[in-house]
Amino acid sequence: MIVVGGSASQRLAEGVAKSLGCKLVHPEVKRFPDGELYIRIQEDLRGEDVVVVQSTHHPQNDRLMELFLLLEAAKEQDVKHLTAVIPYLAYARQDKLFKRGEAVSLKLVSKFIEEAGAQDVVVVDIHEEESVSYFSIPVRNVTAAPLLGRYFKGLGLTNPLFLGPDEKAVKQASSAAKELEASFDCLKKERLTPNQVVTSEKSLDVERRDVVIIDDIISTGGTIVEAAKILKNKGVGRIFAACTHAVLAENAFGRMASVGVERVVGTDTIETPWSTVSVAPVVVEALMKRGS
Amino acid sequence: MIVVGGSASQRLAEGVAKSLGCKLVHPEVKRFPDGELYIRIQEDLRGEDVVVVQSTHHPQNDRLMELFLLLEAAKEQDVKHLTAVIPYLAYARQDKLFKRGEAVSLKLVSKFIEEAGAQDVVVVDIHEEESVSYFSIPVRNVTAAPLLGRYFKGLGLTNPLFLGPDEKAVKQASSAAKELEASFDCLKKERLTPNQVVTSEKSLDVERRDVVIIDDIISTGGTIVEAAKILKNKGVGRIFAACTHAVLAENAFGRMASVGVERVVGTDTIETPWSTVSVAPVVVEALMKRGS
Repeated sequence: MIVVGGSASQRLAEGVAKSLGCKLVHPEVKRFPDGELYIRIQEDLRGEDVVVVQSTHHPQNDRLMELFLLLEAAKEQDVKHLTAVIPYLAYARQDKLFKRGEAVSLKLVSKFIEEAGAQDVVVVDIHEEESVSYFSIPVRNVTAAPLLGRYFKGLGLTNPLFLGPDEKAVKQASSAAKELEASFDCLKKERLTPNQVVTSEKSLDVERRDVVIIDDIISTGGTIVEAAKILKNKGVGRIFAACTHAVLAENAFGRMASVGVERVVGTDTIETPWSTVSVAPVVVEALMKRGS
Repeated sequence: MIVVGGSASQRLAEGVAKSLGCKLVHPEVKRFPDGELYIRIQEDLRGEDVVVVQSTHHPQNDRLMELFLLLEAAKEQDVKHLTAVIPYLAYARQDKLFKRGEAVSLKLVSKFIEEAGAQDVVVVDIHEEESVSYFSIPVRNVTAAPLLGRYFKGLGLTNPLFLGPDEKAVKQASSAAKELEASFDCLKKERLTPNQVVTSEKSLDVERRDVVIIDDIISTGGTIVEAAKILKNKGVGRIFAACTHAVLAENAFGRMASVGVERVVGTDTIETPWSTVSVAPVVVEALMKRGS
């Protein structure tokens, strides 16, 4: 197996290659003076099992184009099998029509990934499990929740509670809580549009307990801020925020900190200062399963 | 017919719609806080002949994604026919393998345009005529050269010469010259890589003549600068630069001005301060032909 590390996922690709004990290839990725992207994979990939690792967070369109071109360049070398590892899949939230006349971006992005040459795909905590259905190739959606849970093991939390800020996140919360044999719960959140939500309170016993609010993605942090405010009113102990994809747009970190969130823990699906946890173990597990 | 104007081609779309006497639609194009693009076409397009006009110059990947999403949004409305007018087609210069292991970007971009829903395509002065072969749908490549030639009619040039800076550009030069019943010629240029060229001199009679150096595209202006230097050494009169696609990256304008280029004339395939000439007439002609 050969791992090709795109520019958005250098650290993760290195971790995956190391863990698999296989070769890591750094493609040539540059820009022409006019801004067009240039991709070249110099290594001979013929007959190899090739894994392209490239996340597609901001700037999404540039990272997507790089992913497409990496797949195309690999495919043209007559590889044996071509896998796309896309730790964070852009446009996953525009996975259906919310209003008439919209472009369902995820549908198009999924088609393009296939068209570019991917024969199977590994994603991490995609926003809606069903939305992988736009692919006609096999897709494995792995979760980083247990890895996030494990991170909190060593922090000496008091009677910890893992809290999903909505009902959908209860899966993440339960899966993380399991690692500490801790309890979990969730709030009730309703998504009105891809970008607008309301959170409603629920009877929760959090007095003097340390709470980890856990979700698949933290974008502007609005959902976490709402949840933290609710917790504050109920005499909570320490508050942490954990997520797989720490998008953290528009000063999300500052806004969460200002309502008492002590620490934000993300993974390297998006390589930022908050990428405390690596998803390499679950990606490697998915890649090994394919081989078996 | 309904014209949908992408954000990169607002002026051109307006000109095309006006000339065709048909409705111009402004789609909703916005960005989510994390940077993802959102596209919605509110108008009812069902059963209509729809023309999406969107150029794909810098930032190419963002403009391409907008084009793809506009086509997808239109297609999903069950239009009668969907045409993509792409005045400047990004990645047209990476139209083959220059080195082993490269991604042939144009191949992928062409496939994506089709996949997104375009049933035919209009481009203007694509870099290599043959490179439209990556499309399996009909492509009309129209030229702006006569429009550029016509622009110089009113300028009172002295014994004008239209000069292609390489042999390929002789077609543009001849086609522009025809409008003024002027003469044309070309230099000899060799492209070593998509971005590296050498220009060699040729016996040219330009003494006291006004010369319009004309090409399909001016990117960094290097080719024009080389040509202008050669002309200067031969006692040329005034020097103009004309092109269809005024990319003008990296202070190209300043560099051309510094070697005596008096004016740079481009078209609205790329909407910039140099878009003096509109390609609307040739685009409209291509769209009318399809109808007949």
